[in-house]
Amino acid sequence: MKRLYANCDILSTGKNGFEYIKNGFLSVNGDTIDYIGAEKPTDFDEVRDMTGTMLIPGLVNAHTHTPMTLLRGVGSDLPLQSWLFDSVFPIEDRLTPSAIRAGTELALLEMLSTGTTSFTDMYMEPRETAEAVLASGIKANLCRPVQCFDPSEPVEDNFRVRESLELFKAYNNAGNGRLKIDFCVHAEYTCTAPVVKYYAGFVRENAGNLHIHMSETKSEHDGCVQKYGLTPAAWFESLGAFDSRAFAAHCVWVTEEDMEIMKRRGVSAVHCPSSNLKLGSGVAPVQKMLDMGINVALGTDGAASNNNLNMLEELHLASVIHNGVYGDPTIMKPADTVAMATVNGARLQGRGDTGELRVGKKADFAALDLTAPHMRPNLDPLALVAYSAQGSDVVMTVVDGNILYDHGKFTTLDPDRVYAHVEKALSELYK
Amino acid sequence: MKRLYANCDILSTGKNGFEYIKNGFLSVNGDTIDYIGAEKPTDFDEVRDMTGTMLIPGLVNAHTHTPMTLLRGVGSDLPLQSWLFDSVFPIEDRLTPSAIRAGTELALLEMLSTGTTSFTDMYMEPRETAEAVLASGIKANLCRPVQCFDPSEPVEDNFRVRESLELFKAYNNAGNGRLKIDFCVHAEYTCTAPVVKYYAGFVRENAGNLHIHMSETKSEHDGCVQKYGLTPAAWFESLGAFDSRAFAAHCVWVTEEDMEIMKRRGVSAVHCPSSNLKLGSGVAPVQKMLDMGINVALGTDGAASNNNLNMLEELHLASVIHNGVYGDPTIMKPADTVAMATVNGARLQGRGDTGELRVGKKADFAALDLTAPHMRPNLDPLALVAYSAQGSDVVMTVVDGNILYDHGKFTTLDPDRVYAHVEKALSELYK
Repeated sequence: MKRLYANCDILSTGKNGFEYIKNGFLSVNGDTIDYIGAEKPTDFDEVRDMTGTMLIPGLVNAHTHTPMTLLRGVGSDLPLQSWLFDSVFPIEDRLTPSAIRAGTELALLEMLSTGTTSFTDMYMEPRETAEAVLASGIKANLCRPVQCFDPSEPVEDNFRVRESLELFKAYNNAGNGRLKIDFCVHAEYTCTAPVVKYYAGFVRENAGNLHIHMSETKSEHDGCVQKYGLTPAAWFESLGAFDSRAFAAHCVWVTEEDMEIMKRRGVSAVHCPSSNLKLGSGVAPVQKMLDMGINVALGTDGAASNNNLNMLEELHLASVIHNGVYGDPTIMKPADTVAMATVNGARLQGRGDTGELRVGKKADFAALDLTAPHMRPNLDPLALVAYSAQGSDVVMTVVDGNILYDHGKFTTLDPDRVYAHVEKALSELYK
Repeated sequence: MKRLYANCDILSTGKNGFEYIKNGFLSVNGDTIDYIGAEKPTDFDEVRDMTGTMLIPGLVNAHTHTPMTLLRGVGSDLPLQSWLFDSVFPIEDRLTPSAIRAGTELALLEMLSTGTTSFTDMYMEPRETAEAVLASGIKANLCRPVQCFDPSEPVEDNFRVRESLELFKAYNNAGNGRLKIDFCVHAEYTCTAPVVKYYAGFVRENAGNLHIHMSETKSEHDGCVQKYGLTPAAWFESLGAFDSRAFAAHCVWVTEEDMEIMKRRGVSAVHCPSSNLKLGSGVAPVQKMLDMGINVALGTDGAASNNNLNMLEELHLASVIHNGVYGDPTIMKPADTVAMATVNGARLQGRGDTGELRVGKKADFAALDLTAPHMRPNLDPLALVAYSAQGSDVVMTVVDGNILYDHGKFTTLDPDRVYAHVEKALSELYK
């Protein structure tokens, strides 16, 4: 089936980066873009008039914990340790698989309605999240995070390592590749060297993609140096974690040497500005990483520390905070931050077939309403997307050519059913 | 006429700060709130069912340049001087009174649809803005900024001083007090000491409210110290500018001594986080000012440097960036930042009769939709408003008891007429 999206502006990608087409046409054959241009093609089965919108590449949320929507607003403004140990962890201990499913589906509603076509998640009970992803039509990279709290336990007894491998075998590339399973070490401070080393072997063996939290806080970074005489990046490298493809969320406190390691080993970074600011973690050296050629993507982190899953909000933040902190309005160009929110995330996910609007790429895109007052005038389309666009400007979200969100309506999820499920989960969680 | 807003949550203010009422009722008699509570009153002429919403005090945008919506996205990411002198100023020179009116009305659509009930503006041709304000039903404090580029000109010949006084006489307290006229010195670097001193006399004489740009950039702050041996705050004080009520936009580079002056003289500050970040100006010491008891309000600045007029976006930024920059998640509490976006702005505007939802105050409020995915669950209402709410969550905006925006419809402005006017202005501006 060939569907033509007609009469819309298109933020496409050409040989030299973004190319903006005004009043253009984008045609999708099955799940693939087969035409982008200013002339109307003649060969199509169905046409959608998209007058007054701009098609942008689907947003990729490269680091989140989707089920934490159920903890939105919990323990706001507590010190970090107290927030985690006194507020978040006791609630998480009460989360059932059914609640995880409800929280994930609430997150899917929020993400699809704000233009996210793919996300990378790290959370427990990933089979629930996997089933929700498969049913919804969105793309996701999921994982079962490995932790180790008992250093005396033999490495081969770590049940999380076992579950991670089982998840990979059960779900990797399910849904015609929409679902990918990553490997995951939660963080340096929640794991031991022998477990990381042991687990890194499986990642290599399966040509896996390793998801870690790295140098999020100063105390984490400094604590690692104190314990091991190595920064977290150097510690992970020394244990073989970077022998495979890997990406690190946060990277707020990475040193020059850490960035050299990341560059040399092809480790991507995920910038999570809202969360890093709100939790008082700091501001990651993103421009420096971009200048060095490190692939930097963008993520929301979980709703407990953000408190949304709105990639256009993160894009705005990533576009302005570095200018302010470094005192230079010329850094962090919209072309760079829009790439961080789209193609860089796709690359980190191992999805070379998406993240850009080009012929031959998967039809993963969002349509922004250009008619709202704050979207006028459109003098500079990239600036409009980076600085003015809101999550609510998304009127359509398309994944693999399927329209999943269309002017307030979800085609694969029933919001009323999700909200009822969420209310039930909340009543058990906070009773 | 008594109108009852029924079945809504209400972020009201009690003896000890914000008080949250669930499933409550707010009654408006004429332009004034005459009841807030959980019990349904019996005496009303009309009822509006507000199920699924939260009423919040109207947002006060305490520093903007509304007609600059016509320059949204102009010269993004240029160095500051080049942005101003090569991009912004040449376009501003071509602005006609008719274009100013169009830009103001575009701004009014954006502000009313995102919950702003009152704004403080600084721009040329304020009579156009005044007429637009009066016709629209919104509240505003306007001014004619005083500048002086020729130090040899006798102070009494400054035509801007004259226009400022004329504007005050013609419009102050028009529209039953909805419109107030402030006095204004544009900034230290665009004025001379004799003109400030001369003009300060008129401000005193008229018991006026003085609007200034102060210590926005390091070069402005340092340049003043170099020229006069005084910081901008000390310079303004020495010239009598703080003998009257005054407020200063930005205050990014104010020193401890400057904050002492502001505290002693009752000078309010306006925090403009998006603009200060985007233009690379820095991050104002807001928590320090709050701790000292300085009244700090919140503003968007103009759309050329923001690039929106969305107070909920500013509220989010103000709530997270200070935590990140100072490395402390416990500072900048939502109760403080929500007050900055509402009652502190009203106080700065000289409007003691609004900014809070209390019996006896003016009925200036916005209704937030609580049913969107990102507004669930509502575990902490202040955190929800500060961290999760988006401009698009506003479904109703009420000023002096008049519903000006209602579920996508404007009652006093015709968007199609405004957009046509804007297109005409743009075609002349960018031909």
